[in-house]
Amino acid sequence: MVNFRFALNQLGLLFCVLSALQLLIAGWSSLQLLLGDDAELLAARAFTFSALIGFGVGGALWLVNRTAAKTLERREALLMVALSWLVGAALAGLPYLIWANLTATANPEHAFLSPVNCYFEAMSGLSTTGATILTGIDELPRSIVLWRAATHWLGGLGIVVLFVAVLPSLGAGGKKLFRVEAPGPEPEGVRPHIRETAQVLWLIYLGLTLAEIVALRLAGMNWFESVCHTFATLATGGFSTIDASVGGFNAWAVDIVIITFMFLAGVNFGLYYKLIRRDYAVLWRDTEFRVYVGIILVATTLVTLSILGSPITLTSGEVLDPSAAQAVRHGLFTTVSVQTTTGFCSADFNQWPYLAKAVLITLMFIGASAGSTGGGIKIIRIWIVAKVLIAEMERAFRPYVVRPVKVGSTAIDAPMRYGTLAMVLGYLLIVPAGTFLIVIFEEGAGHSIDITTAGTASVATLFNIGPGLGRVGAIENYAWFTDAAKIVMSILMAIGRLEIFAVAVLFFPRFWSGD
Amino acid sequence: MVNFRFALNQLGLLFCVLSALQLLIAGWSSLQLLLGDDAELLAARAFTFSALIGFGVGGALWLVNRTAAKTLERREALLMVALSWLVGAALAGLPYLIWANLTATANPEHAFLSPVNCYFEAMSGLSTTGATILTGIDELPRSIVLWRAATHWLGGLGIVVLFVAVLPSLGAGGKKLFRVEAPGPEPEGVRPHIRETAQVLWLIYLGLTLAEIVALRLAGMNWFESVCHTFATLATGGFSTIDASVGGFNAWAVDIVIITFMFLAGVNFGLYYKLIRRDYAVLWRDTEFRVYVGIILVATTLVTLSILGSPITLTSGEVLDPSAAQAVRHGLFTTVSVQTTTGFCSADFNQWPYLAKAVLITLMFIGASAGSTGGGIKIIRIWIVAKVLIAEMERAFRPYVVRPVKVGSTAIDAPMRYGTLAMVLGYLLIVPAGTFLIVIFEEGAGHSIDITTAGTASVATLFNIGPGLGRVGAIENYAWFTDAAKIVMSILMAIGRLEIFAVAVLFFPRFWSGD
Repeated sequence: MVNFRFALNQLGLLFCVLSALQLLIAGWSSLQLLLGDDAELLAARAFTFSALIGFGVGGALWLVNRTAAKTLERREALLMVALSWLVGAALAGLPYLIWANLTATANPEHAFLSPVNCYFEAMSGLSTTGATILTGIDELPRSIVLWRAATHWLGGLGIVVLFVAVLPSLGAGGKKLFRVEAPGPEPEGVRPHIRETAQVLWLIYLGLTLAEIVALRLAGMNWFESVCHTFATLATGGFSTIDASVGGFNAWAVDIVIITFMFLAGVNFGLYYKLIRRDYAVLWRDTEFRVYVGIILVATTLVTLSILGSPITLTSGEVLDPSAAQAVRHGLFTTVSVQTTTGFCSADFNQWPYLAKAVLITLMFIGASAGSTGGGIKIIRIWIVAKVLIAEMERAFRPYVVRPVKVGSTAIDAPMRYGTLAMVLGYLLIVPAGTFLIVIFEEGAGHSIDITTAGTASVATLFNIGPGLGRVGAIENYAWFTDAAKIVMSILMAIGRLEIFAVAVLFFPRFWSGD
Repeated sequence: MVNFRFALNQLGLLFCVLSALQLLIAGWSSLQLLLGDDAELLAARAFTFSALIGFGVGGALWLVNRTAAKTLERREALLMVALSWLVGAALAGLPYLIWANLTATANPEHAFLSPVNCYFEAMSGLSTTGATILTGIDELPRSIVLWRAATHWLGGLGIVVLFVAVLPSLGAGGKKLFRVEAPGPEPEGVRPHIRETAQVLWLIYLGLTLAEIVALRLAGMNWFESVCHTFATLATGGFSTIDASVGGFNAWAVDIVIITFMFLAGVNFGLYYKLIRRDYAVLWRDTEFRVYVGIILVATTLVTLSILGSPITLTSGEVLDPSAAQAVRHGLFTTVSVQTTTGFCSADFNQWPYLAKAVLITLMFIGASAGSTGGGIKIIRIWIVAKVLIAEMERAFRPYVVRPVKVGSTAIDAPMRYGTLAMVLGYLLIVPAGTFLIVIFEEGAGHSIDITTAGTASVATLFNIGPGLGRVGAIENYAWFTDAAKIVMSILMAIGRLEIFAVAVLFFPRFWSGD
């Protein structure tokens, strides 16, 4: 039997933490109200209500199940992780729903009046996807915008701690993968104790956060914009404070800061730990980091060349005259944004030539480094798969020669090769399955949907990117989908974020039965 | 060192066989000329010239290399197979080129004036793809049309013999796969001797051919049309005698006969051997056959439901009033045609709802049974991958439970699981790579190409189907692509037909070096 009660006990704890954070936002909101921002009146109330409900439910879950045996074996860990995201998103979306209902007379058509929309937006936040069902973000109470950004930041922190500290200590796949990514002197992972590792990661994350807030403020954003965009950058999320995303600011300094920190957020956080310990050579030694830089350089070159000489339309609608500098700027911004699965948009890349789009779609699949906040299949897995396929090709004509498959100097053992192939194949099969479900639900509701839109919506949510192409392109949003399609995409976001297994096994009868 | 000379010697033999067949066509063409078909004058000449060139080159290759050591190890076998298709297609396309040059004054713009087009058409024929660069097929000399169909038939025969008889005897992957597909009393494959097995397969193929020719004749086609469509059906090719494909005949009886034989061509030919030996229960026992029937039933239902109630546009342009009978007819025809990778078209499915298109695209990837003339990933591989992924999911939460992965009653061993995963992943990676190259070459030439067209062109050639969607849809053709894109697609056809490895290893430096 799965120790269901312990998982619920832990979920109760998570609810209390989320509620405490919502109370914090409520406090900030009240402060803004005192400073004269009347829009915050109902928002402060919404956050307070939501926090009270969260404390009530979470406290009850915790209390009722506090006597549960504290066994955190693999099944319990997977269940806890899956519940944290799938159920946690409901609480994270609650303030949106309450606020929309409080203001329903003034905004009778607001997207947040639909519970499915609120869940989608919250899941998009926590999973650091950045796909939104909103328009008119500029008109929302600022506390709501801040909470959206905060869900990104929390989700990003959760993922780094999960994949670098928690899962490896349980002996799950993450450990081996992490060892491959950041080989070094420590035989037992970065540090032996979960708590200590988690603390270091938390400090790194906090340090990067403070650095980017200051940098964005210096680049010309106000403090509020700086904080929100920092949260969205470091989590590779993509929510902005305005509909036009980063393109609406159209400032060189802002773009450069955000490009830099998107790049940093896509690096394995284990590397920062090594850098802190003055092991600078790790940057040259680490295969994934070198491939990451290489992919960005090649992709940026291709994208830049393909848009060179054409006018560039920003997401704000402004059209820039053709210039090499602008092509490099927006080519680099878009490449890094998509590669790291952040999904900030500066230019409307839906209008770019197909070559640029084909490169960007390829990047969506690859994604960022393992152990980063980014999504996608992850560079190290792509690298392992490439090595395995080359080895298999050789086996076709030379069956008795056995060559080890290596990443850097580390040999990849058979179960890991096999597991990596299976996981990548799993991802590649979920993409068409997601596309299929989206098409079925849209056509079932009598809407017509083209394959580019449905396919990239599936990719952009599964790989936690945000924008896709066609009607989910850079200047579009996800509001127009049917509820059923939005639920499919919410689950895709969770599946992608938790690297398939934690969510997928829940649908597995044998998970719930047996010893 | 690869025994290059023996491979060339065998290639010489193949050239002589192809040339003999072209002489046969030249003879038939001359007969038509005597019967008053003046268009055959230059065609007969073209086939004769081509045969003479083929005999010259082939004979020289054979003679010069006849002293080569007769070692047919794995590398030599792979090289021979790859050369047969890649170089054989050049000879198969030679009559087209010669004929077009002989008639250049009358047809100064004919597609066959381009050597790349001729190669594409011949490779499309031999690989049983059925993608064409032609329009105005009705106006071609009938001997040219017959040769196009004959390349299908030869290619289909070659593939069945190769995968069921030759490769297994070399201990290549095919043997194991074949054992899984058609488990039975013989421990050493269908029959122990290549020659004998090949003979039985040849007789089965011939029997099916004669049966379909008669059936189509009775269904109302003339003998010429019956023969050509039979060649294209049994090879799961798809070349027709008219531009509008099978839709141009618009006859219930023709559709029913062709659906039946497409279905039969998509079955593992090993099963027919069992049926001949009165082992009728093999149809129930064989997992792949059951899944094959199941997929067709489910897909036909989905496609039929999605086109029900709408008028159906035939490939001839004729529009049928909505009726359930027509929806079932064209839903079934198109489903079986795509699933078996034949690619005959009755209706213009490019106009169908996206749900139907999504089903058809899924079928393109799945393909027919292993050991059939069909292409695609093959049902048995999809089945194994599904089983493996389910087993891996269980491993995520119960790592110490080992369950065998079974197909029917046969357990799949680790190297085969691993090899199947690698091959499927290889296919899935070649699709975007092909799409990418097509986009690059088209945009490089200043053409705009949409992702649906480029993507389905890649899928439709790699998986040997023929028509795709968009501008390679049911009523379109491949003539408008640049030469570079056509060469990419020709290679994709060969890669798909030879199941990746035989072609891919040629680009592998280690294949050519070492012991």
